[in-house]
Amino acid sequence: MKKLLQIDFIMDGPFGEAMSEAFAPLAESIAQEKGLIWKIWTENAATKEAGGIYLFEDEASAMAYLQMHTERLNSFGISPINAKIFDINEPLSLIDRAPIV
Amino acid sequence: MKKLLQIDFIMDGPFGEAMSEAFAPLAESIAQEKGLIWKIWTENAATKEAGGIYLFEDEASAMAYLQMHTERLNSFGISPINAKIFDINEPLSLIDRAPIV
Repeated sequence: MKKLLQIDFIMDGPFGEAMSEAFAPLAESIAQEKGLIWKIWTENAATKEAGGIYLFEDEASAMAYLQMHTERLNSFGISPINAKIFDINEPLSLIDRAPIV
Repeated sequence: MKKLLQIDFIMDGPFGEAMSEAFAPLAESIAQEKGLIWKIWTENAATKEAGGIYLFEDEASAMAYLQMHTERLNSFGISPINAKIFDINEPLSLIDRAPIV
């Protein structure tokens, strides 16, 4: 069953175009992660927050990624990490045009 | 500029199929909200959490919806509501196949 992974954290930047340039190689790497369907990269320069919304094929992939990514963020000096793994209510989401299929 | 709205909260249910049935009329109503591109309905029966990930056309739509929806959730007895509005880093998200266009 597909799982949604929701991650956010405080960070000092970079944001915007500088973020796009700094993390393009990381995004290319993430695109290859096992079980990843897609990731939306989130950012808020005003509150110094960033994160990601991910759709995974299954819980095992989501949990393995979360453990790896938490360690990677910690290695960047980012901690704590807010993370939640959710089921998706598909009938309700499809009524609201959600891109989950 | 498009905005992502991330909401989660504790609730007693319903979850799963019962949630799909109970909230179908609400989902139909949400589909008509001004500026809404899509909503993913999230739930976790084990942790008694639920929420939504929304993509809006602009910040004004996201903020107006958040205020209205917070009041609605409060009227259901649900409080507090965790909510964050984020920018989307489009170049990084598109590398990771994000459904944002």
